[in-house]
Amino acid sequence: KINGDRLWDSLMEMAQIGPGVAGGNNRQTLTDEDSEGRHLFQRWCEEAGLSMGVDEMGTMFAMRPGTDPDALPVYVGSHLDTQPTGGKYDGVLGVLGGLEIVRTMNDLGIKTKHPVVVTNWTNEEGTRFAPAMLASGVFAGVLDRDWAYDRRDARGLRFGDELERIGWKGPEKVGARKMHAFFELHIEQGPILEAEGKQIGVVTHGQGLRWIQCTVTGKGQHTGSTPMYMRRNAGRGLARVTELVHEIAMKHQPNAVGAIGHIDVHPNSRNIIPEKVVFTVDFRSHKLDVLEAMVAELAVRAPGICADIGVKFTSEVVGFFDPPAFDPVLVERVRNAADRLGYSHMDIISGAGHDACWVNRLYPTTMVMCPCVDGLSHNEAEEISKDWATAGTDVLMHAVLETAEV
Amino acid sequence: KINGDRLWDSLMEMAQIGPGVAGGNNRQTLTDEDSEGRHLFQRWCEEAGLSMGVDEMGTMFAMRPGTDPDALPVYVGSHLDTQPTGGKYDGVLGVLGGLEIVRTMNDLGIKTKHPVVVTNWTNEEGTRFAPAMLASGVFAGVLDRDWAYDRRDARGLRFGDELERIGWKGPEKVGARKMHAFFELHIEQGPILEAEGKQIGVVTHGQGLRWIQCTVTGKGQHTGSTPMYMRRNAGRGLARVTELVHEIAMKHQPNAVGAIGHIDVHPNSRNIIPEKVVFTVDFRSHKLDVLEAMVAELAVRAPGICADIGVKFTSEVVGFFDPPAFDPVLVERVRNAADRLGYSHMDIISGAGHDACWVNRLYPTTMVMCPCVDGLSHNEAEEISKDWATAGTDVLMHAVLETAEV
Ligand SMILES: NC(=O)NCCC(=O)O
Ligand SMILES: NC(=O)NCCC(=O)O
Repeated sequence: KINGDRLWDSLMEMAQIGPGVAGGNNRQTLTDEDSEGRHLFQRWCEEAGLSMGVDEMGTMFAMRPGTDPDALPVYVGSHLDTQPTGGKYDGVLGVLGGLEIVRTMNDLGIKTKHPVVVTNWTNEEGTRFAPAMLASGVFAGVLDRDWAYDRRDARGLRFGDELERIGWKGPEKVGARKMHAFFELHIEQGPILEAEGKQIGVVTHGQGLRWIQCTVTGKGQHTGSTPMYMRRNAGRGLARVTELVHEIAMKHQPNAVGAIGHIDVHPNSRNIIPEKVVFTVDFRSHKLDVLEAMVAELAVRAPGICADIGVKFTSEVVGFFDPPAFDPVLVERVRNAADRLGYSHMDIISGAGHDACWVNRLYPTTMVMCPCVDGLSHNEAEEISKDWATAGTDVLMHAVLETAEV
Repeated sequence: KINGDRLWDSLMEMAQIGPGVAGGNNRQTLTDEDSEGRHLFQRWCEEAGLSMGVDEMGTMFAMRPGTDPDALPVYVGSHLDTQPTGGKYDGVLGVLGGLEIVRTMNDLGIKTKHPVVVTNWTNEEGTRFAPAMLASGVFAGVLDRDWAYDRRDARGLRFGDELERIGWKGPEKVGARKMHAFFELHIEQGPILEAEGKQIGVVTHGQGLRWIQCTVTGKGQHTGSTPMYMRRNAGRGLARVTELVHEIAMKHQPNAVGAIGHIDVHPNSRNIIPEKVVFTVDFRSHKLDVLEAMVAELAVRAPGICADIGVKFTSEVVGFFDPPAFDPVLVERVRNAADRLGYSHMDIISGAGHDACWVNRLYPTTMVMCPCVDGLSHNEAEEISKDWATAGTDVLMHAVLETAEV
């Protein structure tokens, strides 16, 4: 069994870096705080005797050697970057849980045939630079490295420049590594495990995602002196599309969700009718046909409901992945590990996207989930118990050990 | 008659300061560009032999002496600050038109019994610091000076600190000056004069205004892993209130307008359901009972349509003025001046708020309006013709001369 106290202490120490304003974290990707968190993780890895590799996307791979020089490594990990108003566990648990199983293997003198590599993927969250899971997407060959470098944040800064600025652009070609398997431990970020009273979620599938960046264009005019009949108010376009997105998602309940999280209004002045509103629709479903039906319905209906009020609707897909089905052999190992260790468990679908979803396209992959309080995540109030973190990491270790062959 | 070419050249020279991105201006109040514009205006005033006074709100008063030492001055003017995406004429025409009539009086050796003072009111636009017409509101005794100093911009900077920083906090107590009369020349910012083919708008009344800052509070949750039934999406509250505001304004057509121009979403991340949306409703009418009915309907209905979807609505009034009726004697002088000069004219209601609306509470006040192309204002594409500017300034001069007693 892993050392739950040590794991918890490391989680709390990492949370000191990039504190939020309400008890959580703001350690967005490629900020100075992200770099500081990486340095702490690197120090811990060195203390545990791991050797660090960094690829051209800044993803960190900390290796514990195996006994067979020809055996491909078993990878574990997740991400250390957070939302602007993020919690202390989303992503971090998977990285530091990976570190904890290596520390435990060191303590117990456990040797494995396959090396074990603890991974920190760059820009999982996708808030500062869309899309989410950017580095793992390049790793999986779905996204292009140079295209990724050209992503820009709201201030117009380039991903590639910022990666260089914080000093974490590594020499290793992205995707050069081959994997025997990949495991990602993560908090559920939803309410199901807690409601069902289960300690472990055995993740069999994930939801697919489409991020559709929409632009509604009207005319910036004076709010006081422009008669109502002359107005082309882009804010009303946003209002109509907001309700349309909700209506479309509700139609496919409980197999889909949809919302708009990011909205930029131009010029955003109290006495100017919005000229332009740019916003991103987030649609998800674990059924590909449902996902595609939602995207199609938006594309068919949004231009019309906007044209009706004299504003123009355009859109482009800025993030996507299809619903993944995880490797049945690894899934079974997670289930068996939970059984052996006496932790209650249930099969679950991941509501969020994870780096595991991209890696799954190339190598046998699965996830381990633990509950979080009230299903709350992407919120500084995100909370888990030490027991939950410990149980999840225990199960992770046992599934990894079986795969890495003790 | 005034010198239209000289007026136009001054307008174009001022427009060099704080250029926008699309041919207009971004010379927001209390920025370095605002300060630069003030220095240029000051230099021109000195060249015209005027003596400058600056009050504690940064409002500039440039005086041409009269022949009677006991006669109160006749004031003319408007504002040099602009919207973030503003035009070259909104406000600026009134200040530089005032300067032009003084220059013309100098050229022609015209003496008046009453002094004539050209005024540049601080923060008319209200974009950076709400409310609009801030300095004239303090001058009129409706707003408190220290309350005004405490207004903050989106970055949290204080009005008082910024006024000091740019070096334009003057020694003169606000409101210490008494006025014989106040005239404000301004572009219409609406489509009526152009549509009716009139050169001059004789402004008899103005619309009243209410700015209602609204906050919709939901819960910031993961867009992927939060089931639809658990969501409290503040963005949907914004959508519903946007449509409600439009519906309320349409009900009172053509006697009212309403829109939301300013929207801030928190935390504004693609994969976080909006936790909180803060936005400002702008309602206007030239009928006080209509204005109050609109505000009341919003207050009654908005909390309910938000509560229906699990989000909370609160609001506070951050800007207000009641519909002004301008001084009938001055209005008649404007009308007569237009007749005498042979300019076509019509009576009109000001759709926008102006410093004249506040000054009108204390001293006899009126306005002169000239058309603008397509009624477009608060937009970098705002345009007027040199002929319109000249006609408006001619009428202004004749009405001022009659009032200042040649
Ligand atoms: N786990 C997680 O929150 N990932 C961010 C990508 C997503 O929005 O699902
Ligand atoms: N004239 C003008 O645009 N003033 C700003 C105040 C308002 O919104 O009416």
